[in-house]
Amino acid sequence: MSLSEFELIERFFKRPARRAVLGIGDDAALFVPTAGCEIAISTDMLLEGRHFFSDAEPEALGHKTLAVNLSDLAAMGARPRWALLACALPDADPSWLEAFARGFFALADAHGVELIGGDTTRGPRNLCVTIIGEVPAGQALLRSGAQPGESIYVSGHLGDAALAVANRRGRIALAGDELTQCEAALARPTPRVALGQRLRGLATAAIDLSDGLTGDLGHIVAASEVGATVELAAVPRSPALDRRLAGPGRAVALECLLAGGDDYELCFTAASAAAAKLHALATETGIALTRIGTIEAAPTLAVVDERGLPLAAPRAFDHFLA
Amino acid sequence: MSLSEFELIERFFKRPARRAVLGIGDDAALFVPTAGCEIAISTDMLLEGRHFFSDAEPEALGHKTLAVNLSDLAAMGARPRWALLACALPDADPSWLEAFARGFFALADAHGVELIGGDTTRGPRNLCVTIIGEVPAGQALLRSGAQPGESIYVSGHLGDAALAVANRRGRIALAGDELTQCEAALARPTPRVALGQRLRGLATAAIDLSDGLTGDLGHIVAASEVGATVELAAVPRSPALDRRLAGPGRAVALECLLAGGDDYELCFTAASAAAAKLHALATETGIALTRIGTIEAAPTLAVVDERGLPLAAPRAFDHFLA
Repeated sequence: MSLSEFELIERFFKRPARRAVLGIGDDAALFVPTAGCEIAISTDMLLEGRHFFSDAEPEALGHKTLAVNLSDLAAMGARPRWALLACALPDADPSWLEAFARGFFALADAHGVELIGGDTTRGPRNLCVTIIGEVPAGQALLRSGAQPGESIYVSGHLGDAALAVANRRGRIALAGDELTQCEAALARPTPRVALGQRLRGLATAAIDLSDGLTGDLGHIVAASEVGATVELAAVPRSPALDRRLAGPGRAVALECLLAGGDDYELCFTAASAAAAKLHALATETGIALTRIGTIEAAPTLAVVDERGLPLAAPRAFDHFLA
Repeated sequence: MSLSEFELIERFFKRPARRAVLGIGDDAALFVPTAGCEIAISTDMLLEGRHFFSDAEPEALGHKTLAVNLSDLAAMGARPRWALLACALPDADPSWLEAFARGFFALADAHGVELIGGDTTRGPRNLCVTIIGEVPAGQALLRSGAQPGESIYVSGHLGDAALAVANRRGRIALAGDELTQCEAALARPTPRVALGQRLRGLATAAIDLSDGLTGDLGHIVAASEVGATVELAAVPRSPALDRRLAGPGRAVALECLLAGGDDYELCFTAASAAAAKLHALATETGIALTRIGTIEAAPTLAVVDERGLPLAAPRAFDHFLA
């Protein structure tokens, strides 16, 4: 333990303030908000052993720590601008810190996000990012705007990160390319930052999929005071997941697809009039946007299987019931 | 463990949005910044066993968790407006949560601070607040403005919280009123929120005393590229601390007074022309403002004892060297 708290911050996390008035190194950071915008702000706490495995590669962990927060802003249609990073670390290991900072800043730079503050302390590894973005006033995507008759969409495909966790726990066996691809989905999720901003004016409600499709769509349904029917056959999945859905691993695959969590894709609703624009947006961004169901007036969330029969929806992940 | 994560948030932390556009319950909170202001933002992570004892009374802990963050904004001269609370908790104990929330919200309400977001997860107890305030553009109090010849001031008196910690560790023995008063200083610090805002235009540099006087004044000195001489005899202290300073407990008392930490008073510098206004401010607010030394051109920080002799300054607290 040769690095002090201040040396650690200086060496790995402090950079000259760019757009902020004042970055790391005072009692608080200062920035000038953009006129006409609302500030969107969110915080997420990632704990070793709960949100990531103890052997998580630090560069990927640096990426993921910021990615899960960027994903929250994406779901609001906000443009990310600034971040704070508070962390408890068991030790001040320079090689771990260097790799973690590399992963964090690579993603931050890719999205023009400036790290302007934080806190470091010694303790069980815990990474807490606060992300700050801006959205033109009145244009944020909320959970509460879904209307009966609208379509439900998701970006990308779901369940691979959860498959990787299931594999780690010995519930299924992945190997080769499937293992690589599912581990990558778990370790290095891609937050849909640009897509979220493009969905302003198109989506009527949005959320990011962190706790699993049924749980997170449940938040849209609850906030919008509507219901939903999801067609299992339409939910986009990888060949790895699809293969298990058709075989003896079906129960685990279903759980991963519908309630797995850690997808960090966007789930949103849109009126049928938006379909053509969404199709064009998918083509333009190269991100699949798949219609998976319909918003209903009756306040229940149903998933129907390949034969159209209702499925008992797997429970979403809950940190205090898990 | 009967409460889910969402029930926990709903029951103890969610309140209707007041000034914010959108509070707890979406992917991010939304607020409209005040025109002409800069946003001041800071985050602090408090860990059980490091920043507070395992037996800390939850109501007081709720107070302190917010207080240490308000103190950072006070040191910037910023007006606190919004807060986020991310916490890891070993369990969802309703009575603990109710008391913690009571302490947190009592202080939040006293300062017009709105809790607009957060995160909860299960893990070793860790409380991470992000505090957001506003300050008229260009008027924030920085660490970097001190000039040679200016006076150094502190608010209140220092060292009692550290005395309480020394007592817990068996290094000194407190009893009766002294014990009560030092324990209260540790458990329920008073952030100098109004004072900080009143110091805009008077103080040339400011910091809050969280890690101890010499360490924190050292940050002003370093950021301002100056030095400082502190007169021990002038550093305000309680009778409990003063009595030990004159007796066999002198070494511990000195350490508590100069490097104890957890004071959450403000340390600031001001030109001599500001002295009369500071005197009037102290009278008006009822908060002692004591001149404890002078900013020097030579870049060293010296403490001189009652006889004017240099003192070996105790080291400030560091989370990774401690």
